[in-house]
Amino acid sequence: MPAKNQDLHGSAPDKSETALLLIDVINDLDFPEADGLLRYARPMARKIVRLKLRAKKAGIPVIYVNDNFGRWRSDFRQTVAHALGEKSRGRAIAALLRPEEDDYFVLKPKHSGFFSTTLQTLLRYLGSKKLILTGIAGNFCVLFTANDAYMRDYELIIPSDCTASNTAKENRQALVLMRKFLKADTRPSTRLRLPKGRQSSAASFCRGRS
Amino acid sequence: MPAKNQDLHGSAPDKSETALLLIDVINDLDFPEADGLLRYARPMARKIVRLKLRAKKAGIPVIYVNDNFGRWRSDFRQTVAHALGEKSRGRAIAALLRPEEDDYFVLKPKHSGFFSTTLQTLLRYLGSKKLILTGIAGNFCVLFTANDAYMRDYELIIPSDCTASNTAKENRQALVLMRKFLKADTRPSTRLRLPKGRQSSAASFCRGRS
Amino acid sequence: MPAKNQDLHGSAPDKSETALLLIDVINDLDFPEADGLLRYARPMARKIVRLKLRAKKAGIPVIYVNDNFGRWRSDFRQTVAHALGEKSRGRAIAALLRPEEDDYFVLKPKHSGFFSTTLQTLLRYLGSKKLILTGIAGNFCVLFTANDAYMRDYELIIPSDCTASNTAKENRQALVLMRKFLKADTRPSTRLRLPKGRQSSAASFCRGRS
Amino acid sequence: MPAKNQDLHGSAPDKSETALLLIDVINDLDFPEADGLLRYARPMARKIVRLKLRAKKAGIPVIYVNDNFGRWRSDFRQTVAHALGEKSRGRAIAALLRPEEDDYFVLKPKHSGFFSTTLQTLLRYLGSKKLILTGIAGNFCVLFTANDAYMRDYELIIPSDCTASNTAKENRQALVLMRKFLKADTRPSTRLRLPKGRQSSAASFCRGRS
Repeated sequence: MPAKNQDLHGSAPDKSETALLLIDVINDLDFPEADGLLRYARPMARKIVRLKLRAKKAGIPVIYVNDNFGRWRSDFRQTVAHALGEKSRGRAIAALLRPEEDDYFVLKPKHSGFFSTTLQTLLRYLGSKKLILTGIAGNFCVLFTANDAYMRDYELIIPSDCTASNTAKENRQALVLMRKFLKADTRPSTRLRLPKGRQSSAASFCRGRS
Repeated sequence: MPAKNQDLHGSAPDKSETALLLIDVINDLDFPEADGLLRYARPMARKIVRLKLRAKKAGIPVIYVNDNFGRWRSDFRQTVAHALGEKSRGRAIAALLRPEEDDYFVLKPKHSGFFSTTLQTLLRYLGSKKLILTGIAGNFCVLFTANDAYMRDYELIIPSDCTASNTAKENRQALVLMRKFLKADTRPSTRLRLPKGRQSSAASFCRGRS
Repeated sequence: MPAKNQDLHGSAPDKSETALLLIDVINDLDFPEADGLLRYARPMARKIVRLKLRAKKAGIPVIYVNDNFGRWRSDFRQTVAHALGEKSRGRAIAALLRPEEDDYFVLKPKHSGFFSTTLQTLLRYLGSKKLILTGIAGNFCVLFTANDAYMRDYELIIPSDCTASNTAKENRQALVLMRKFLKADTRPSTRLRLPKGRQSSAASFCRGRS
Repeated sequence: MPAKNQDLHGSAPDKSETALLLIDVINDLDFPEADGLLRYARPMARKIVRLKLRAKKAGIPVIYVNDNFGRWRSDFRQTVAHALGEKSRGRAIAALLRPEEDDYFVLKPKHSGFFSTTLQTLLRYLGSKKLILTGIAGNFCVLFTANDAYMRDYELIIPSDCTASNTAKENRQALVLMRKFLKADTRPSTRLRLPKGRQSSAASFCRGRS
């Protein structure tokens, strides 16, 4: 099947120097420390909602980078349903940040969005060099993903109001680390000027290698 | 979220030294050479159906390793629906090999099932060292996956009646390569004795690292 | 060349559940913050010397995981010569920790020892599941390597007296993170009981897959 | 050590859209099938010598991608000495293709030059998108490397007179596969027009990220 196999299987019709990543926001928050996290995650989610809206207007692709829940089935839809379920403590957040038809989804098996996933290949096809990281937990999966992005020479924007951790202190410390060692821009999303992504177009949607 | 993050996100409740991989069988076969392929893929699919049945009885986990179709959304369910659609030339095959609730799914962005996917991490959690490879095309995605598996020191079983290529000659040549250079056992599925996988159990279904 | 290609090219004759990693200790320390680092790196090096001696007695393999200096030539010998040179500010440390004939060397292009290197394949051949991490900087290359090791499910021992950072505070914070989030055992090397590695033997030195 | 860690550790001072890879040419050829291989490898080596000369004149960087011999020590110099030794059956070939000061070296633990090595990171820093593959064995390590390069979207040139396998038939078959499925340009080196690589310059030799 040579003809078909030349490009990314599954399309990445957008081209954009910048991509917005939402990390583990679709989550049942079913773990002991979630009480603390929840307090910070709700305001965070409202900030991300606005940032996501602005990103889409600017033509910046949105990528959910998320844990899988249940048996490994590459089934993000089921993961979303699970997080929206009655028993899910992350229901309100998942409802606010419910993915849309033109968002990308990458399921990850471990903490970093780059480990054992399609993320790097997807970003290569999108042409993205600059990543806006948001989500939970700021001092864990966001930090791990940021470390891996930095090693791969991506430029990092990690808005301080768009990540949450179990405690405010832990979140602050993680932001300090990422600003200092990963050269991340951590200004709050409200003070962030979004670059213009190149718009998706019929022309760029093709399977052939350009 | 340390407690939760210690294991594979998304569970791999089974443990089995052997795993059965179905490569790209969920496919719309929408490419010029598919006519040739289809002729061989139908009898192949019937063989795989039986092999899958035997594997499940033996407690061997079944992993669909498949291209994504459409925008990258980690949504195997949609890929299945697409391949079963009226316009899909691979409809009959997808119908025969429709995935079940307890199968695993790994979406791949390129030819090899190991490139930019979760496959290796999943196999590590399953404890599998021996892989039965089946699917299409024998001389392309199956061959690429076999090469990568060999480099990672998996033992390979590639039943000659469970792969198909555009021509019979190409399929035969690929099988010769895999037998000779990758030490694959290529006897037909009907002559294959399946090892016993360890059965899934409630006890092994846990998120904590054992 | 099938026969030869079945195993690790270049041998890993040892087998040991535990491996000792020395990270970036062969270093010219040619960067502005090195003054601070040097103060802590000297006593650290003396502790590592003793730990390395004990490790070798216990049959635990020692792996230098180190930046390359100069053009990329996979030439650790030249890197050692460079760090021992007259102009090198890391001379004393490199002299204390000069590699020996039976040590392993892995050159890394970035911060984590696992990124774009042979480390994981080497550890698989050694059979190591437990890593003792030492070296510089505690809050950078050691931390990045620890994160990556944790995601790959290695058990971590990071003796608090065997890492150094630019400031004592940064080193302490990194140790706290690694203890808390990566479940690392950070007791000082003097209080560490080394497990017994399986001894190297003529029998285990073979190219064939065991 | 943030300042230093932003770039490739170990420098890649060249920039070139094209890179020339010499695969496993530094080799003791100590395996049973080497008699056949030797017959084809000698004329191949003479062709590669000329191609390498032309590449250097054109400013195209040369990368040795080679198995390690002996204990894993990231020590290509020792590997070269071993292949040049009296007992080495690959002595004549290693002598013809002895690496020079401005060549790059990547040691690989397995068949593909991309598996568990620094190759992809090095190519990213060189800015190379087009690879000229040469070396031995054409139907094994060259083929595995070509497959992996193709999946990563490199454009491939594999001159038919610059690879050798145990038999002429196997070499020819591998070239057919690479031309047909990997879209490789396999015209002989004598008919190849080399693109102009950008020359190395003092300006491009810097550790800071450009």
